[in-house]
Amino acid sequence: MKESLKRIFAAVALDVGLGVREGTKLRMVGAMPHRELMHAIARGAYERGASLVDIQYDDQQLARIRADESRDEYLDEATLLLERESDVLVAERWSYLRLVGDEEPDAMEGADQARLTRIQRARGKAVVALRSARMASRIAWCVMPAATDAWARKSLGPGADSEELWDILATILRLDRPDPAAELRAHVESIQARSSALDSLGLRELHFEGPGTDLRVSLANESRWLGGADKTPDGEVFMPNIPTEETFSTPDFRGTEGRAVMTRPVRIHGSLVEGGHLRFDGGRVVEASADRGAEALRTFLDTDEGSRRLGEVALVDSANPIGKSGIVFDSPLIDENAACHIALGCGYDPGFEGAQAWSDAEKTTRGFNVSLVHEDLMIGSPQMDVTGLDFSGRRIPLIRGGSFV
Amino acid sequence: MKESLKRIFAAVALDVGLGVREGTKLRMVGAMPHRELMHAIARGAYERGASLVDIQYDDQQLARIRADESRDEYLDEATLLLERESDVLVAERWSYLRLVGDEEPDAMEGADQARLTRIQRARGKAVVALRSARMASRIAWCVMPAATDAWARKSLGPGADSEELWDILATILRLDRPDPAAELRAHVESIQARSSALDSLGLRELHFEGPGTDLRVSLANESRWLGGADKTPDGEVFMPNIPTEETFSTPDFRGTEGRAVMTRPVRIHGSLVEGGHLRFDGGRVVEASADRGAEALRTFLDTDEGSRRLGEVALVDSANPIGKSGIVFDSPLIDENAACHIALGCGYDPGFEGAQAWSDAEKTTRGFNVSLVHEDLMIGSPQMDVTGLDFSGRRIPLIRGGSFV
Repeated sequence: MKESLKRIFAAVALDVGLGVREGTKLRMVGAMPHRELMHAIARGAYERGASLVDIQYDDQQLARIRADESRDEYLDEATLLLERESDVLVAERWSYLRLVGDEEPDAMEGADQARLTRIQRARGKAVVALRSARMASRIAWCVMPAATDAWARKSLGPGADSEELWDILATILRLDRPDPAAELRAHVESIQARSSALDSLGLRELHFEGPGTDLRVSLANESRWLGGADKTPDGEVFMPNIPTEETFSTPDFRGTEGRAVMTRPVRIHGSLVEGGHLRFDGGRVVEASADRGAEALRTFLDTDEGSRRLGEVALVDSANPIGKSGIVFDSPLIDENAACHIALGCGYDPGFEGAQAWSDAEKTTRGFNVSLVHEDLMIGSPQMDVTGLDFSGRRIPLIRGGSFV
Repeated sequence: MKESLKRIFAAVALDVGLGVREGTKLRMVGAMPHRELMHAIARGAYERGASLVDIQYDDQQLARIRADESRDEYLDEATLLLERESDVLVAERWSYLRLVGDEEPDAMEGADQARLTRIQRARGKAVVALRSARMASRIAWCVMPAATDAWARKSLGPGADSEELWDILATILRLDRPDPAAELRAHVESIQARSSALDSLGLRELHFEGPGTDLRVSLANESRWLGGADKTPDGEVFMPNIPTEETFSTPDFRGTEGRAVMTRPVRIHGSLVEGGHLRFDGGRVVEASADRGAEALRTFLDTDEGSRRLGEVALVDSANPIGKSGIVFDSPLIDENAACHIALGCGYDPGFEGAQAWSDAEKTTRGFNVSLVHEDLMIGSPQMDVTGLDFSGRRIPLIRGGSFV
């Protein structure tokens, strides 16, 4: 990765992604191949007055060793280390930057799905404070993609390397423009304008229609359309995802009905799930199958009560740079921005008016989904139509042939 | 590193170093180049019934970035993350394995010593619970050397690599014997026999004499000779250091008098200190100089009250495999076993009868040194004589010409 690109990436992450300023504490998480990039970001953070920067390295090989070798009775063991760490990150309002890009995309291929799910669930419980703080925008957080050689080979072909993938990511992240930060801020404004327009329609239901898909998703009176940037109670403006092309909302999970076909592969607990089919009845997934990774999908669905219910619905114009690239990045962070999607698992508080103040029980009663997990599933395509229904039942075309009307 | 050597190393670390068993939680710390070895150890730990294995990677580059770039006012910031982590490791009695071997031995060369000391002091305060638990043998812990390419070049010459250093370490660690674990256990027994013999002499003072060195170290009535292995309150037998050749005790810091010359280089906060001279008066270092790294030595001495006082005295026969190798490993873990040494900084509780039950204030009153740091300084050589004085003032030759009498 070129030094100049590292500096531009760091500036976008720190200034637009997180709003790092005097006294910020920054936690970064990434894979080993991101080490030099994370050091450049750390340097940039200290230059901006950060008081402390901490890096945590993903170690999927270690996770795989545990999944394979641990005695059965210890798989549900949640380490108190993770729990305390999560508590401190929230209590001290650390900013949180996650670089996404696997060192070994297939590290979990062939591992026992039931064992992985138990480990994942225990981990999810341990870090619930941090997840809640992110979902409620109480801390500034940002997820960005970062190339690795293995990821490049996976998404671009056997001969590719991280440099080639960085070239593509630079375009998608708008890092190749004269003033990347300004471009990104302007882009965020256009997403926010779209969200406002959707809010003003007073929608009660979305109807997704495409090849194999006929899905109705209920929106609550409290559902709000969001996208682009967010703000902490301290006034830090941050972008949860870079890139982002979506306008999304937290639905009323109880009203999901019909069928959906997954139009892009996703990786669940490390296993690739491709060609998935879901059938919803009364707000719950009652049937699930997949051409590949069906077991991973089904064990995911069994994580908890909320993992079979919707926590997010997102509208994406297929004609954006990611959709137009035609590449399947095998990364939800990017792929979710290529197409309309739904997410199984926990909802995002700001997408549901009032949810930030509710207990989990209260959320569930009001139709806001609660879960330890959150997984985006792409259902959009250039053949997709999305129609909104307002409180009077009027049908309003939102997307036709993959593009916003 | 050969797979077979990884397995042998793992077995020695887990079975002799720590006594990993059903339900053990294991924290490992090492540098990035130790990653595959740590994975092999993790696998071995799970095979032995460990309930959880956690790896933390040293990141000296990040530490250097902080030392260079952080605003001055944040250097004393102790992260609550470290503090909580240290608390949990102690509360849950995690076993602790540290692999020593720098990825970049010169990572801190040229950094501002005063700034490094402030960072180090803040860090030392944050992890005091873990340090105390180790020093009091309340948890099983073990430090072992692990080769890196950079370390090999540093200690063996510019053309060397980690494989060459592993060959030498395998000998020093006794990994090349038919039954390394049994050999190591027999070696520990011989060290323990020497400690018992020293205890039975009822020594009140040690007199070190060699070129440039004329040093008297007081032993308290409570000082005990130790070495080789130790035991937690739960009955786990562990070896704090592998390799180990030393018999050591915690002195009465108030009675150190005279001069000592450092016979081997040491690395303090990342900077090499070579040819050091110390003068003690009334138990305190009152003069310090060095041919190289004098500033690092002096800023170390200013860490706290206890960093100028003795916390350890150790007798080592120069005719052991490490001493005989003639190599300066530039690693205290190994080099301290080549020669007699003293340590500035905190004492080791089991080396001072009763200390485990005392508060820091009580320890200080009774002559047991308390500090946030502990640094071994080698003063032994083949020209060294060590004489013990018992309560009646009788002079008992212990070491003559570097070897035990």
